[in-house]
Amino acid sequence: MNLPRIAIDAMGGDEGVRVMVEGAAMARRQHDGFNFLLVGDRERIERALENHPGMAGASEILHCEDVISGDEQPSKAIRRAKTTSMGLAVNAVKEGKAGAAVSAGNTGALMAMSKIALRTMPGIDRPALAALLPTLEPHDVVMLDLGANTEADARNLVQFAVMGAAYSRIVNGFEKPTVRLLNIGTEEIKGTEALRDAAARLSEASAREEGALALQFDGFVESDKINRGETHVVVTDGFSGNIALKAIEGSARFVTDLLRQAFTSSLRSKIGFLVSRPATELLRHHLDPNNHNGAVFLGLNGVVVKSHGSATAKGVAHAVNVAARLLEDDLTQRIAQDLAELGEDALRNNAAAGSASNGDGASA
Amino acid sequence: MNLPRIAIDAMGGDEGVRVMVEGAAMARRQHDGFNFLLVGDRERIERALENHPGMAGASEILHCEDVISGDEQPSKAIRRAKTTSMGLAVNAVKEGKAGAAVSAGNTGALMAMSKIALRTMPGIDRPALAALLPTLEPHDVVMLDLGANTEADARNLVQFAVMGAAYSRIVNGFEKPTVRLLNIGTEEIKGTEALRDAAARLSEASAREEGALALQFDGFVESDKINRGETHVVVTDGFSGNIALKAIEGSARFVTDLLRQAFTSSLRSKIGFLVSRPATELLRHHLDPNNHNGAVFLGLNGVVVKSHGSATAKGVAHAVNVAARLLEDDLTQRIAQDLAELGEDALRNNAAAGSASNGDGASA
Repeated sequence: MNLPRIAIDAMGGDEGVRVMVEGAAMARRQHDGFNFLLVGDRERIERALENHPGMAGASEILHCEDVISGDEQPSKAIRRAKTTSMGLAVNAVKEGKAGAAVSAGNTGALMAMSKIALRTMPGIDRPALAALLPTLEPHDVVMLDLGANTEADARNLVQFAVMGAAYSRIVNGFEKPTVRLLNIGTEEIKGTEALRDAAARLSEASAREEGALALQFDGFVESDKINRGETHVVVTDGFSGNIALKAIEGSARFVTDLLRQAFTSSLRSKIGFLVSRPATELLRHHLDPNNHNGAVFLGLNGVVVKSHGSATAKGVAHAVNVAARLLEDDLTQRIAQDLAELGEDALRNNAAAGSASNGDGASA
Repeated sequence: MNLPRIAIDAMGGDEGVRVMVEGAAMARRQHDGFNFLLVGDRERIERALENHPGMAGASEILHCEDVISGDEQPSKAIRRAKTTSMGLAVNAVKEGKAGAAVSAGNTGALMAMSKIALRTMPGIDRPALAALLPTLEPHDVVMLDLGANTEADARNLVQFAVMGAAYSRIVNGFEKPTVRLLNIGTEEIKGTEALRDAAARLSEASAREEGALALQFDGFVESDKINRGETHVVVTDGFSGNIALKAIEGSARFVTDLLRQAFTSSLRSKIGFLVSRPATELLRHHLDPNNHNGAVFLGLNGVVVKSHGSATAKGVAHAVNVAARLLEDDLTQRIAQDLAELGEDALRNNAAAGSASNGDGASA
């Protein structure tokens, strides 16, 4: 885990080897001291490295030709863990040959392979997929789970809260990130029993030891507030998280599509667009997914970062930087410490909690 | 049900009596032949009517002073059904004094009162809240359930599909609206068992009688596609629907807020903004919630439309127009017919379905 080396699945993603290598090289210029294990077709990697001589000196190549395709079923993909660039990159983390793995390939396959190879860390029942979303504030918001699990019980949600807060502390530098549970209202009686139970546990833990806990629990948040930036970490089950994330992405694209239509609807508006170009470029920059790229599988014995399939080299660099920071600050160790501080009450299993907190959930 | 009269809760909403009366008057100019039961403080209603003499002649006033507040618990609100403007407006539908009710008040309270007073129609287990959302196409998309129920089983989802399609036929004029279930992927194996089971039932029914069914089931849709306009009706449980709806609204506001910041960031961009004003006005018009106002409680014995609390008179007019069209085209009757055509297989209850379709769900 201490090896400052990142395994790169050079074959995943829509853009292929060139973009992955270029992105890693860009990240390396910002994060000196890291070196790379580039997994994929040796010839193509060597060709891509010709443009990045500094990077070539800091890289080892692990040759393989087999690739997991974008539409491959995870259940089939895992059988090819030993022969594919994705599987070998993850395996390098398992074997201690790298501290983190970055892939732009099939999310489901990467998740399944990572879970099998790295296993969930002690104290965590299920890993979660976390991503960074842009906000009105200078910092991104961390949202999880985005689809690693279709369902989550109260205990899972509490663990997600701890993992998301640890991630936010490292990536955004908040000492005590504010955490909220995604719900369909902010009143205590709203939502599912799992949500109310998780809220009660987190409230108790927050109140119990003022200052000790590495997060501040602020109750529920509705999905129209995610991008406001008032909350640092938004916690939810994988189904709702996936629905919210894609709704946000789709709506942002919808509005910018309408805007493009509007700006090209007449000569006058075309001129207006050209004049205000610097302003719309600012907007484009702020919303550019490449500036927020890098979803992380939290809760495993090792760091695995998913780069968006269509990310540019700049986007890949962002994802590699996220991996580097999580490695430097030892994410797994942080999560373990925070879980210990949270205490057993918040992490008791649901069977016991169910009978103890029936009725309590709403009033706590 | 045949009375072309709409009961208006004149006291609900942030803007009060004046906006509700003005909105109803605007709608009346587009929908001749309708008259109104205005429920609320007689003096204030009469004052508002002074500006709308035509409307005054077509309105009866039902005096009451009591109002349900925006933050009142539904469980408390229902005890005041007989004394409040909201309760009396809904009750007028129950007693046949009006064909439909429109309120801009507390959604939860309106839903609870409507359910108790009007009851669910035969063949429907649970009512659902449906709304219209803007798309890239000229027509809006119908989405339901948006929060009437926190959970939904396969049978509920099938009923929502039928109700949403009937609504889309009336409001958008599609003969055979396309319907999709909201999910976290489009592959048949994705999502919860309820979703897979509902998909199997709707597929079967669609395939069985080519052309007879009043909807075309197209499988799953992800939430980033809701605003594309390719699907006419998006069906989901109330929790996910509420998360998706608010995420879409929040993200659209986020992008337009960023845009406003960008346009005011320099003199040059301010000038650009002024020049391209007609274009951005077009965008504003397209996204203006007042042009899509009017959520409907589907599945009750009577039409109840929820106008947004902050809607302008134009928005209220849109909601009243929705109520008028649903009344003219006899929504309840349409839903009853469509349910009959769907057949018993699709509507069998879940206990039976569970054992019959285990394993089938994914492969159907």
